[in-house]
Amino acid sequence: MSKPTLTVGLIGYQFMGKAHSNAYRQAGRFFDLPYTLRMKTLCGRNEAAVRAAAATYGWEGIETDWRKVIEDPEIDIIDVSTPGNTHCEIAIAAAQAGKMVWCEKPIGNTLSEAEQMVQAVRQSGKPSVVFHNYRKAPAVAFARKLIEEGRLGTIYHIRATYLQDWIADPEFPLVWRLQRAVAGSGTHGDIASHIIDLGRYLVGEFDEVSGMLHTFIKDRPLAGAIDDRLGAAASTERGEVDVDDASLFLARFKNGALGTFEATRFAVGRKNYNRFEINGSKGSLVFNLERMNELEYYNNEDPEGLQGFRLIQATESAHPFAGNYWPVGHIIGYEHTFVNLVADACFAISKGERPNPDMEDGYQNQRVLDAVERSHASRSWISL
Amino acid sequence: MSKPTLTVGLIGYQFMGKAHSNAYRQAGRFFDLPYTLRMKTLCGRNEAAVRAAAATYGWEGIETDWRKVIEDPEIDIIDVSTPGNTHCEIAIAAAQAGKMVWCEKPIGNTLSEAEQMVQAVRQSGKPSVVFHNYRKAPAVAFARKLIEEGRLGTIYHIRATYLQDWIADPEFPLVWRLQRAVAGSGTHGDIASHIIDLGRYLVGEFDEVSGMLHTFIKDRPLAGAIDDRLGAAASTERGEVDVDDASLFLARFKNGALGTFEATRFAVGRKNYNRFEINGSKGSLVFNLERMNELEYYNNEDPEGLQGFRLIQATESAHPFAGNYWPVGHIIGYEHTFVNLVADACFAISKGERPNPDMEDGYQNQRVLDAVERSHASRSWISL
Amino acid sequence: MSKPTLTVGLIGYQFMGKAHSNAYRQAGRFFDLPYTLRMKTLCGRNEAAVRAAAATYGWEGIETDWRKVIEDPEIDIIDVSTPGNTHCEIAIAAAQAGKMVWCEKPIGNTLSEAEQMVQAVRQSGKPSVVFHNYRKAPAVAFARKLIEEGRLGTIYHIRATYLQDWIADPEFPLVWRLQRAVAGSGTHGDIASHIIDLGRYLVGEFDEVSGMLHTFIKDRPLAGAIDDRLGAAASTERGEVDVDDASLFLARFKNGALGTFEATRFAVGRKNYNRFEINGSKGSLVFNLERMNELEYYNNEDPEGLQGFRLIQATESAHPFAGNYWPVGHIIGYEHTFVNLVADACFAISKGERPNPDMEDGYQNQRVLDAVERSHASRSWISL
Amino acid sequence: MSKPTLTVGLIGYQFMGKAHSNAYRQAGRFFDLPYTLRMKTLCGRNEAAVRAAAATYGWEGIETDWRKVIEDPEIDIIDVSTPGNTHCEIAIAAAQAGKMVWCEKPIGNTLSEAEQMVQAVRQSGKPSVVFHNYRKAPAVAFARKLIEEGRLGTIYHIRATYLQDWIADPEFPLVWRLQRAVAGSGTHGDIASHIIDLGRYLVGEFDEVSGMLHTFIKDRPLAGAIDDRLGAAASTERGEVDVDDASLFLARFKNGALGTFEATRFAVGRKNYNRFEINGSKGSLVFNLERMNELEYYNNEDPEGLQGFRLIQATESAHPFAGNYWPVGHIIGYEHTFVNLVADACFAISKGERPNPDMEDGYQNQRVLDAVERSHASRSWISL
Repeated sequence: MSKPTLTVGLIGYQFMGKAHSNAYRQAGRFFDLPYTLRMKTLCGRNEAAVRAAAATYGWEGIETDWRKVIEDPEIDIIDVSTPGNTHCEIAIAAAQAGKMVWCEKPIGNTLSEAEQMVQAVRQSGKPSVVFHNYRKAPAVAFARKLIEEGRLGTIYHIRATYLQDWIADPEFPLVWRLQRAVAGSGTHGDIASHIIDLGRYLVGEFDEVSGMLHTFIKDRPLAGAIDDRLGAAASTERGEVDVDDASLFLARFKNGALGTFEATRFAVGRKNYNRFEINGSKGSLVFNLERMNELEYYNNEDPEGLQGFRLIQATESAHPFAGNYWPVGHIIGYEHTFVNLVADACFAISKGERPNPDMEDGYQNQRVLDAVERSHASRSWISL
Repeated sequence: MSKPTLTVGLIGYQFMGKAHSNAYRQAGRFFDLPYTLRMKTLCGRNEAAVRAAAATYGWEGIETDWRKVIEDPEIDIIDVSTPGNTHCEIAIAAAQAGKMVWCEKPIGNTLSEAEQMVQAVRQSGKPSVVFHNYRKAPAVAFARKLIEEGRLGTIYHIRATYLQDWIADPEFPLVWRLQRAVAGSGTHGDIASHIIDLGRYLVGEFDEVSGMLHTFIKDRPLAGAIDDRLGAAASTERGEVDVDDASLFLARFKNGALGTFEATRFAVGRKNYNRFEINGSKGSLVFNLERMNELEYYNNEDPEGLQGFRLIQATESAHPFAGNYWPVGHIIGYEHTFVNLVADACFAISKGERPNPDMEDGYQNQRVLDAVERSHASRSWISL
Repeated sequence: MSKPTLTVGLIGYQFMGKAHSNAYRQAGRFFDLPYTLRMKTLCGRNEAAVRAAAATYGWEGIETDWRKVIEDPEIDIIDVSTPGNTHCEIAIAAAQAGKMVWCEKPIGNTLSEAEQMVQAVRQSGKPSVVFHNYRKAPAVAFARKLIEEGRLGTIYHIRATYLQDWIADPEFPLVWRLQRAVAGSGTHGDIASHIIDLGRYLVGEFDEVSGMLHTFIKDRPLAGAIDDRLGAAASTERGEVDVDDASLFLARFKNGALGTFEATRFAVGRKNYNRFEINGSKGSLVFNLERMNELEYYNNEDPEGLQGFRLIQATESAHPFAGNYWPVGHIIGYEHTFVNLVADACFAISKGERPNPDMEDGYQNQRVLDAVERSHASRSWISL
Repeated sequence: MSKPTLTVGLIGYQFMGKAHSNAYRQAGRFFDLPYTLRMKTLCGRNEAAVRAAAATYGWEGIETDWRKVIEDPEIDIIDVSTPGNTHCEIAIAAAQAGKMVWCEKPIGNTLSEAEQMVQAVRQSGKPSVVFHNYRKAPAVAFARKLIEEGRLGTIYHIRATYLQDWIADPEFPLVWRLQRAVAGSGTHGDIASHIIDLGRYLVGEFDEVSGMLHTFIKDRPLAGAIDDRLGAAASTERGEVDVDDASLFLARFKNGALGTFEATRFAVGRKNYNRFEINGSKGSLVFNLERMNELEYYNNEDPEGLQGFRLIQATESAHPFAGNYWPVGHIIGYEHTFVNLVADACFAISKGERPNPDMEDGYQNQRVLDAVERSHASRSWISL
């Protein structure tokens, strides 16, 4: 009723724009938020397209110049969901204008950009958010809780993969996500960044990495238009692919755990296989985004003969976020990770706490991304 | 823009009310609907509760008397989501007032009620809907498509189970779903009705059934308040459970297929295990609601040695509804079956087609429910 | 060293003959048996074939007349592994000659035969064995142990299926297993008998059943030769299939549990899907022969949020039989169920105990088979 | 009947001795071998123990001095199944005596040993065998066939793990497998060698590697006796663990494929999780030894919407070795990989072909093991 309002301006309206819009629209339907979220402005360069998107997704109005959105005194939150090459400028301008920066990952296309961005956010004194949304799957948040409670004991291993296949066809066009000038990197920043985040969230800080990046398909048809992940029309001309198709690395964590990390868009048959397995002295956990409502848990303190990986349906009220939706066994989907993230950030902000994850996490993530790139270039281990 | 409007009045605001509200609110966000859905009135007996629900779920206004909703000339659709004992009266009144009836399942508490209801709907000349929402999981709708294309050949078998455990605790209170006077039956109407619907949708019409109903726990603590599936407070007094805890039956279909059907709330560990397996002469299909984004398919025309159940992720644009949401591998959840059902009904109505499923399906479903009850009573096979 | 010897004569040398031979040959290699098992005589009608089989499987000698084997005073055990129509005569003769009868299932082709057989065995005063070998999978024997310990509490449900597809092709020939005069029944005696046995072993005695038998393919090419399950050559002539292709029934157990049982050879894609799920008040168990080294276990006394089906690898020394083979995680196969059964029978006999299962179990099994057949004929429930 | 004989002397009688004995004993029971395998001599240092093992496993006689076995002119095959520190001397002596060398893996404790061994084998002119038995799981051999047929197209990725947990308990004693002087290495030679072999068999030769070895538990109770993997009695004294607990590396193959390899004995809950996933341009394959009768296969040329990982039960006659055992769906176990390997080697030798795999494979494997060790030491990529 008398809740304060947080007013949002969202820059970007494609895949992430759709997901974020849904989150702002739905968060208050499932959570008793401390704020009313007002979806004021959706911003994009193509006026007709952004107007249509705003109508569909429920925004009050549109802009085609992001600077205007930042200048709007009513707006509290600037959500940066554009391709990576524009994040830095927008986020810094937003922070300098005193807005909260809520930013897609990876926050910058380079470590230098990320440093400038996080510096600007710190100087703004405002809370921030980075959209590492998979932390907010109930099963992942519950995994974190189990680890914090010590149920895994000393962590020995994490093996994390993020496997997709949407560009395995050599004739898939050179969309913006395959262009260094726009996306910064390929698989590395897009999906390796997610498993790096889960590694940091669940295991701890990285100590050193040794990795390689690889491009299987060196040239592709030019895309007819700079479009998002889906829907690009191919042209007959070809262009060079200057980003990685796969990113693989070994890691040591500061707490002594070992990790293997692999992200690729060439794992034919794997659609969204963001899977991790964590082994500790007292038990293990397994998660796979394709079955994101489930968590496997092995407890080596179970009685002899009765030990085994348990398939937990993380849809009970004992599981974070799950109780806000439906009865046990009635699953939620991908989009709800964003709904949960938005809700969680609102609760944190209202309590004066740092949202989890925020731009500091985005920055730490980028330090790992950068270290892997340097390891690739130098063919050696890089310390963090 | 200039879309016609369909105005909805929803009677009932608990579990199904929440799910239906979400569907009306979200359908237009993911589908380019032929109508604008206007969420005008939410109706319930407890004014404070219904007012809070309306605010949370996005309804313009409330009513505490369902007759007022039916009298509202602006309203096109009366959505009947109350406990079963009130369906008949509301639905008939709505039909007689010329409204479309969109009704939760089972449509009536008895076959006689269902007959009267479907008769009233027929006389209204209006399209209708019954919320057998699981037809609208992309994997299920795709299963139907594969069967229609003949990919399974002659169907030999269906084995369908709907297993839950939410009342396995003998001290779980006597909520309205466990009272014959309110719910009509227990497991039978609540969840056996769903697998009967899937049987009809995927295999065809039932020819005869032989079954049994059973109550494992004969008395329970009285619930402090008539509440929904969740959240009932127990009392120290106990009452008799006069509905079934489990419903099991064998079936022959008119096309010669054989079926086993089992619904129970006493399958400890099973939360929402609405699973079917269908075997035909050319292949087989398996679905489980707990992993509702997946469909298993066996094609016995695959090359020798290469045959096996395929785990299809029904999240591609080739799968019904899936293309309206997220890229492949980004799953949807329980609530989207209602979103899809609402969208699908809108498309059908705008084309002058019968929504699928409609009250005729609800009636046919009830004929099977009734036949199983009579089989249980007579300990014999009952023809349909 | 100074172990007493049990001398075996095996009647039948096809599929079961191969499996039993392997069991006699291997049992002493993995178990410290109380007896030396002497494989003296393999018996079959085709001298050349039985001679070749004896050499391959490790028998000292052969016979073509089973009566000669029974007359051999050195022989202690007559193993009856012939097609069903000869079981009765051989088993009774063996019992009357004072031999131990070790018999394949179902023990007779009719209940009357089974009664005569068990009567003869009782009169012989000798221990007996029936080859319901699946009791001896470590996971199944462990399931029994868990149930005996009360870990499932009160048993509410068993749902058991035995699904195969090896005759789904309508042109598969009319082998002996599809001829009533030889096999007695089709799916019913061959594989429904196995899930009935598991029901008796794990849940208890049946109280009443209601079922149906069905034949999908009414005629088939004649087999060129009466051969075993595999390898029959088809002829151009066709003959009537006079046995069932599928057997389905509902059951009540004497302890109040409810059961669904389904056996079919028309579940395309299912090869040896002998699966059961048992739900009790404290937990549940799931087993599938195709993954016979695994047992799923749900314990509803696990802490809130941590409940889930555990995938137990039944290859630890805590699991029956498993410690006699290989380290944990190194699986055993189908054949080892027979090895375990033979070893277990030897231990029981040496201690003067009844082997488990024995001909009394075979007889009780046949009573259930018979009741289902009568239920099918009378279209009613039959009490046991 | 008139088959030539191959006479075997087996050095070593513990875990591998048991497995190899079973293979020699059983191979002729399931395969129509070109040779009669004569199990003449089992050799070990502890006379009483080896005598008991010989009786149990079916050997004609025993020796306590392996040199005597090599001197036996009747013996054709010297099977080296001792701990790693004795392989080199025994194998070279056997080769120099003109025997066939059949050797456990890794063939030597160092690359230098392996070089000397393979040199001696080459000079002997005799065929040889190395016991990389997992090649002979039907599912793995079938995977190789699919890859050879081009069904995966260009191979992009292999990710292979071999995860166990049998020493995760810090109080598990310092058995010989944890002593460098005996075992040469820890996880690396014991189980990383297996996944390296599968990488070579299925993908091709390694080009370069970058890896790390790690020891989580630095000291352990001394074992009461140098015993095998199981059954060691712990002492109160402690000793240093001087081998690795985990081995992780990245790889590039000569054909351009990328690999991640991880072997550990600290993956709590994983018992024998030897799993690989291979992604090619046309499809993918997944295998897990714990479910060794299954192979998952994804074919991206399946029709749109119908693509998915197929769960192939590799128990059909179309699958290598499987037809020699039981009907489809009747699984085989760990021990059969050795039976198949022995049978396969016999067929190759009788045709004058190189057994697969042989000591040359053992040597190539050791080159990769060695390269990973050097990479670990130098913290850099090592070319092969």
